[in-house]
Amino acid sequence: MDEQELYSLAARLREGTLETSEFVARIKALPFQDLGDVKIDTHRRLRKGFSEIVYCPGKSDEQLRTIARSLSDSAFNILFSRADRRQFEIVREDIPDAIYHDRARLIGVRREDLPLRDGLTVVTAGSSDVPVAEEAAVTAEYMGCAVIRIYDAGAAGLHRLLAHAETLQASKAIVAVAGMEGALASVIGGLVACPVVAVPTSVGYGANLGGLAPLLTMLNTCASGVAVMNIDNGLGAGYFAARIVRQSR
Amino acid sequence: MDEQELYSLAARLREGTLETSEFVARIKALPFQDLGDVKIDTHRRLRKGFSEIVYCPGKSDEQLRTIARSLSDSAFNILFSRADRRQFEIVREDIPDAIYHDRARLIGVRREDLPLRDGLTVVTAGSSDVPVAEEAAVTAEYMGCAVIRIYDAGAAGLHRLLAHAETLQASKAIVAVAGMEGALASVIGGLVACPVVAVPTSVGYGANLGGLAPLLTMLNTCASGVAVMNIDNGLGAGYFAARIVRQSR
Amino acid sequence: MDEQELYSLAARLREGTLETSEFVARIKALPFQDLGDVKIDTHRRLRKGFSEIVYCPGKSDEQLRTIARSLSDSAFNILFSRADRRQFEIVREDIPDAIYHDRARLIGVRREDLPLRDGLTVVTAGSSDVPVAEEAAVTAEYMGCAVIRIYDAGAAGLHRLLAHAETLQASKAIVAVAGMEGALASVIGGLVACPVVAVPTSVGYGANLGGLAPLLTMLNTCASGVAVMNIDNGLGAGYFAARIVRQSR
Amino acid sequence: MDEQELYSLAARLREGTLETSEFVARIKALPFQDLGDVKIDTHRRLRKGFSEIVYCPGKSDEQLRTIARSLSDSAFNILFSRADRRQFEIVREDIPDAIYHDRARLIGVRREDLPLRDGLTVVTAGSSDVPVAEEAAVTAEYMGCAVIRIYDAGAAGLHRLLAHAETLQASKAIVAVAGMEGALASVIGGLVACPVVAVPTSVGYGANLGGLAPLLTMLNTCASGVAVMNIDNGLGAGYFAARIVRQSR
Amino acid sequence: MDEQELYSLAARLREGTLETSEFVARIKALPFQDLGDVKIDTHRRLRKGFSEIVYCPGKSDEQLRTIARSLSDSAFNILFSRADRRQFEIVREDIPDAIYHDRARLIGVRREDLPLRDGLTVVTAGSSDVPVAEEAAVTAEYMGCAVIRIYDAGAAGLHRLLAHAETLQASKAIVAVAGMEGALASVIGGLVACPVVAVPTSVGYGANLGGLAPLLTMLNTCASGVAVMNIDNGLGAGYFAARIVRQSR
Amino acid sequence: MDEQELYSLAARLREGTLETSEFVARIKALPFQDLGDVKIDTHRRLRKGFSEIVYCPGKSDEQLRTIARSLSDSAFNILFSRADRRQFEIVREDIPDAIYHDRARLIGVRREDLPLRDGLTVVTAGSSDVPVAEEAAVTAEYMGCAVIRIYDAGAAGLHRLLAHAETLQASKAIVAVAGMEGALASVIGGLVACPVVAVPTSVGYGANLGGLAPLLTMLNTCASGVAVMNIDNGLGAGYFAARIVRQSR
Amino acid sequence: MDEQELYSLAARLREGTLETSEFVARIKALPFQDLGDVKIDTHRRLRKGFSEIVYCPGKSDEQLRTIARSLSDSAFNILFSRADRRQFEIVREDIPDAIYHDRARLIGVRREDLPLRDGLTVVTAGSSDVPVAEEAAVTAEYMGCAVIRIYDAGAAGLHRLLAHAETLQASKAIVAVAGMEGALASVIGGLVACPVVAVPTSVGYGANLGGLAPLLTMLNTCASGVAVMNIDNGLGAGYFAARIVRQSR
Amino acid sequence: MDEQELYSLAARLREGTLETSEFVARIKALPFQDLGDVKIDTHRRLRKGFSEIVYCPGKSDEQLRTIARSLSDSAFNILFSRADRRQFEIVREDIPDAIYHDRARLIGVRREDLPLRDGLTVVTAGSSDVPVAEEAAVTAEYMGCAVIRIYDAGAAGLHRLLAHAETLQASKAIVAVAGMEGALASVIGGLVACPVVAVPTSVGYGANLGGLAPLLTMLNTCASGVAVMNIDNGLGAGYFAARIVRQSR
Repeated sequence: MDEQELYSLAARLREGTLETSEFVARIKALPFQDLGDVKIDTHRRLRKGFSEIVYCPGKSDEQLRTIARSLSDSAFNILFSRADRRQFEIVREDIPDAIYHDRARLIGVRREDLPLRDGLTVVTAGSSDVPVAEEAAVTAEYMGCAVIRIYDAGAAGLHRLLAHAETLQASKAIVAVAGMEGALASVIGGLVACPVVAVPTSVGYGANLGGLAPLLTMLNTCASGVAVMNIDNGLGAGYFAARIVRQSR
Repeated sequence: MDEQELYSLAARLREGTLETSEFVARIKALPFQDLGDVKIDTHRRLRKGFSEIVYCPGKSDEQLRTIARSLSDSAFNILFSRADRRQFEIVREDIPDAIYHDRARLIGVRREDLPLRDGLTVVTAGSSDVPVAEEAAVTAEYMGCAVIRIYDAGAAGLHRLLAHAETLQASKAIVAVAGMEGALASVIGGLVACPVVAVPTSVGYGANLGGLAPLLTMLNTCASGVAVMNIDNGLGAGYFAARIVRQSR
Repeated sequence: MDEQELYSLAARLREGTLETSEFVARIKALPFQDLGDVKIDTHRRLRKGFSEIVYCPGKSDEQLRTIARSLSDSAFNILFSRADRRQFEIVREDIPDAIYHDRARLIGVRREDLPLRDGLTVVTAGSSDVPVAEEAAVTAEYMGCAVIRIYDAGAAGLHRLLAHAETLQASKAIVAVAGMEGALASVIGGLVACPVVAVPTSVGYGANLGGLAPLLTMLNTCASGVAVMNIDNGLGAGYFAARIVRQSR
Repeated sequence: MDEQELYSLAARLREGTLETSEFVARIKALPFQDLGDVKIDTHRRLRKGFSEIVYCPGKSDEQLRTIARSLSDSAFNILFSRADRRQFEIVREDIPDAIYHDRARLIGVRREDLPLRDGLTVVTAGSSDVPVAEEAAVTAEYMGCAVIRIYDAGAAGLHRLLAHAETLQASKAIVAVAGMEGALASVIGGLVACPVVAVPTSVGYGANLGGLAPLLTMLNTCASGVAVMNIDNGLGAGYFAARIVRQSR
Repeated sequence: MDEQELYSLAARLREGTLETSEFVARIKALPFQDLGDVKIDTHRRLRKGFSEIVYCPGKSDEQLRTIARSLSDSAFNILFSRADRRQFEIVREDIPDAIYHDRARLIGVRREDLPLRDGLTVVTAGSSDVPVAEEAAVTAEYMGCAVIRIYDAGAAGLHRLLAHAETLQASKAIVAVAGMEGALASVIGGLVACPVVAVPTSVGYGANLGGLAPLLTMLNTCASGVAVMNIDNGLGAGYFAARIVRQSR
Repeated sequence: MDEQELYSLAARLREGTLETSEFVARIKALPFQDLGDVKIDTHRRLRKGFSEIVYCPGKSDEQLRTIARSLSDSAFNILFSRADRRQFEIVREDIPDAIYHDRARLIGVRREDLPLRDGLTVVTAGSSDVPVAEEAAVTAEYMGCAVIRIYDAGAAGLHRLLAHAETLQASKAIVAVAGMEGALASVIGGLVACPVVAVPTSVGYGANLGGLAPLLTMLNTCASGVAVMNIDNGLGAGYFAARIVRQSR
Repeated sequence: MDEQELYSLAARLREGTLETSEFVARIKALPFQDLGDVKIDTHRRLRKGFSEIVYCPGKSDEQLRTIARSLSDSAFNILFSRADRRQFEIVREDIPDAIYHDRARLIGVRREDLPLRDGLTVVTAGSSDVPVAEEAAVTAEYMGCAVIRIYDAGAAGLHRLLAHAETLQASKAIVAVAGMEGALASVIGGLVACPVVAVPTSVGYGANLGGLAPLLTMLNTCASGVAVMNIDNGLGAGYFAARIVRQSR
Repeated sequence: MDEQELYSLAARLREGTLETSEFVARIKALPFQDLGDVKIDTHRRLRKGFSEIVYCPGKSDEQLRTIARSLSDSAFNILFSRADRRQFEIVREDIPDAIYHDRARLIGVRREDLPLRDGLTVVTAGSSDVPVAEEAAVTAEYMGCAVIRIYDAGAAGLHRLLAHAETLQASKAIVAVAGMEGALASVIGGLVACPVVAVPTSVGYGANLGGLAPLLTMLNTCASGVAVMNIDNGLGAGYFAARIVRQSR
């Protein structure tokens, strides 16, 4: 794309239909225009097989409507994250095939027929961690992954987790979602060879400090092969794990 | 002791050898003198079978020498905690049978032949947690407990811990010592029925925050039956667990 | 149970009705199935005399209903913690003998006739700490303890506490519940020989930091024999103290 | 002083020996010159009976020498705080009657014969808190107070404190110095009517956080009549309490 | 009171109407009963001229009603702190002469004719700090102080404060109330000789951290003679300052 | 003004119509009256070309009405910050030409025809940061600056920012507004020579900690030429940047 | 291994040379022995192609010597992390082919001829971040990755990073190492499609808070595809990134 | 420079001495080479009149020597910050005219004859803040500013600051350096119209928290026109203030 534009500028310069000074000005500005062009960005996504993701909180209805309209004829999958049902109604006006994933608070638009890649497992410590886990799982699904869910299998009842040891050990990437003390990531990290993406949640009370306790637990894990996302950032974890799975053999 | 004093005062009042006003003044002051009297305190310890413990940091050599001298003919076990070797030399001048427990940084004086109670297990996540664990174990030993040590059995290598599952499940109290992310306490708490005394250590780096990370982990554990001590407080954990073990059937 | 399963597998192997390879596969998986089996867990609880506890926050009505249904014919005591009245109504549909303990926010189901063990005392510093204390007391009661309550006896009015010195000194375990600055645990810890389970509460304002101030106070107590629970964790404290009391002579 | 200057300016203006414009310029600047005059400050101290206090840390030897020289013929008491022995040697060169208070890390110069006021009591929880307590006590002594010291009487051994209940209740101001969990201030605050100045110390380890734990304890005390100083700020506490005592009946 | 009880016990012992063993038991318990008796406490307050203060948050309506009833015929001033208007209505049922101080959130009952003591000044940095300041001022008024209020005189507009320099310098105690960055306490501390009681407020946003910023500012003040209360603790500051003023010459 | 007052006092003193003692008293008080007088302050603002700014939160309706009334005939621009629409209605009663800037939560009154100064650019990382940015931009506009807005140009999509590189490099001051991780300030700081005023916002979740994360990012920036405002303090940033721009060549 | 043991037990049971009860006892214990066996672990590592890593801090010389001896004839690569030169000398006694990587503080032993996988790039913001980056790079090299290093390319000098855009965009995993404000991870995350493993370092001062500032920055990044390691955890990042690269197409 | 390169490429393309494909490749890379070229950067600095600044901590001797050598023939002023004397000796080998500014820990090389701009004032609260202030002042001097220093004029002794009111009010930018509670910035911010750059220092103890207390104070200042630097970041403040002064009228 930008190479073509460069060839065309070069051609016009050679032909003499472009002034040297104008050429220099255009060239100076170009790499930025190039990067700043939304179409180009779409192409990059297409090239990589990943979807457009719109973060909804703090967006005005009007902003959301504008975005929905501009994306309405997208050829690619789209996600709107942390959307409430009212925002879904706004989006649906312009994108009638949008679907609302309630627990994951995601609005999804499926426009691609991505080949399904398996190997992504999402685990939670408790049942209260499920919304964050669903955000991860649904995100990964829109990015072309088949997701296995193992929910409510926290470290304090080890046997619930060990019962799924084989699934865990066969995964290409695992998203481990836990609030409270967040020990789940350490236990899984000790059991498997694949990358573990740990997501602390704000589930808990008292010295949980809104998720800081499991965040610190996960950062300090003595198990190798564990990296950490921001508190409650299921979307980031699903995105990160899906990237790994999609580029895996 | 103080009852005797009370009986004696009552007798003298009855006999008329003590003025009522003087009697009232003595009685008013008595409960405080009573509590403030060091001998009484020694009796209370004897009665409960627990030892005198002297905290060494910040004590001047002179203070330490005074204390050692006053305790030199104790009939009971004594511990000096967080003592360095130089302080041991000072104590030994007046208490020649004092022993220095290097890793535990404890000076111990064994004067009692306490009947050994078993059921106390001390576990560590890593080998760097051993000094804190030894402080717990040696403290409990001076309080009359037989201690089983399971060291370097952290949550990231679960099998090392599970290999000792039977020992853990047969314990009357477990001291779980862990730095890094401190997940050990959650895993043990999920495996056993007896009380688990969790001790976070300052072992780790970065977001470990000098032990705050495992402290928060342990406080937020979703396993029931876990209570927490201050960071690196092996002595407190040994003392607390020994109390439980000694009063257990 | 699992021993029986092992015996049966062994019998079938001996009889030749089980292939060696199949036997090996079954055995390999067994310890996890074993641990993961809910029935086994119930047996473990029966064996130890402790109840099932369901944590209610974040549970959907549907999840709660499923759990209530599965527990409706339990032979053992059950607790649902941090339940609101609406959740109680849901549980009561399937468990008509469920009782709502308002201040403790506990739903209790009494199905066992546990022999009462005494020696457990619950103390609060102020009257605002009572809900957390009640959570501890009721939990311990469902676990077969007779509980003595001493409420509103904080460190700033020492005499209110000292008036109960004998009760405190006769206890086998004490739960000390305090918000504000949490000095109660230190004062009790200095008076008694039995284990003290300290629970900081979020009662207070300003630099109380949602309970962090009394939490730090309790962790740093210079009194020995004090271990600490998470902020507002009355249930954990009641459970921990009841474990001690039940295994005490 | 400045009134005289004003009268003189007014006189010169009236006489015509001062230009109106010059007069206006002088008047505009005057209140600042007034406040900025060091002599005035000395007068204020003399008037209030309080001493000059020089904070030593971070001062170069040269700066210290300059200050010592300028104060060498002071008619009033002087204190140099947080001074080490080497700094004392420098000060002594110019102020031969300077005295080094070792534990308090104070250099004192006694030049006044202040009438002694009693009613100031300094209490510590442990023996490691003594240096901070001494800084408070010696400061108050140089400000004309007779100080009663009650050391090593922490909340975990209540009887040690209660033995001094009468002294405490007869005080006009109490400085309560405590590290670890700092419960001392609450206990004293509940016993006495006079103002209690609480000083947290950095004595402790782990979750003591360099004195933040006792600082929070003291700020959150449920006892009324307690105000708090910065961690280890014995000088500030001695100064504050001495102010109260000196202005008391 | 308790002396009388002691005399009576002694008399009965002498007469032989009290068994020695019973006498000993009574005496042992007495100092605690003595302290625990609410009437005694009332006498202590009467003796010191300070009022009963009931902290309202977290009190149930029933508890509040019980307290109000028991205090309804008090001979002394009473305060109910942090009370809302609904709680006032409950209190007024049993104490018809109760008054609601809206901004201070205090319910006051004036039963004493305390001689007014002057010298107490309450200063605020901004107009949003006024509720906390009023809590301090009204508290001090019920304790018999005449209070001067200087509101909205923060450090960023120094002249507003300096205009009151003479009032400040004539005070016996100053309560300095400030949110935002809390520099007010340092500036006043540098201007006056009397004790300054600093109260940080939670007024502010962002890195104010709910009042932690001015709290730290005030604790670290380089001005001597400043002590600090908990965030928003106007009542504590008024109480503390009133104690100083009432015992001043 | 105050110079005139001084001249007039001097004249009257010279004439003899003012007593010397009265003169001295007036002069002593004057610098404070001078500074404390609102009219004088207005003059100072006029002299510097900056507007009156009224901070609305915590102001009672009555206070706001009083202020609006007193400012209603101001010759200068006025701003009311963090005002809600209801407060705007109150202000408008007395100042009918007041305008409500919705996103900026500012009430503006334009009374001056300030010469427009250009060179001030306001940049945001995301669209949720716009309200804070608008507060900065509108503030600067009322202070006589022409403001260029570049919104939604965060560091994670560098090209969006680089597209405006020339505008940024031609600015005299840049306000960089960012929540989340706040990397925007570092990137801009690396691109331009003019002062960059960084404003962290509370936009984000989890470990964003209400804006502390971007605040720390901005304080630690390795780019030189960046100074930081409090979280969400758009007004302060606009004011600071406008000061720079107005005094620039 | 354990399968063989199971087959042998089954054979003996079938033959009747093993009692059923003994068989059951052995089987019950087996899965734990199985997991606890170090040789098995070695096999797991062999199977996955990853090396043994020994964490050196806190290890006694004796412990280190024991480990070195037991690993001396390993067929696989070995790493000793955070080792100092003295520890290297100890290790070299038993493992003469050990190499000391000075900047990375790693002792490496190369025993395998792993096929080199490329696609791993390590970037640092500054030159002080290099030791942490080297720890990541050398770790990955021992795990069979070819590593490209781009050092000193922080966000404040964007052009230094953009010069390597093509290398970055061709990577399969990027380790981004940054202290100060840590904006590097956001900028790289915005430029590339592959997973970015962000490592905050403790490089910086003041409000850097020992690496907490860049840690928070990285956790809050608005760029997708970034996961975070503990502060200074180069080894963890290298290990995590190498896992991704080795399993990538 | 880069424009010339562009013109030259265009010329060669037109002439046909450059292939179109080669031209496109060169152009694509150019904006990065352009920015990445160190010479260009030097030109940018020359254009803006600001010096090269080398941050010394963490630099190896070799790295420092390489940098010194490459800068030895610079035509512009150079600063090496936070350098110790040993590092100065290394630098001096290659840059004999380098000067060591002891208190500021700066190595300076003066190669330019910048026209002096006045209007920059540096103020400190205490004498311990002087090293940070000197770093600011010397930095600004090397950037062509004449600096007025007002040291030891903290908020607790207001008159010392007010004595310099005229100097402050005549400044174009003020650097306010303060540790302890950092109130200085608020007081100055209330007095002047020019931008105030506040620098918190780590001077203090206890709840100063290594400079966090004055940092928070300064961020929360209620005075407008104050922006804040990182703790102890004198260099950043000097640089920022010098930028303002140099672009001022």
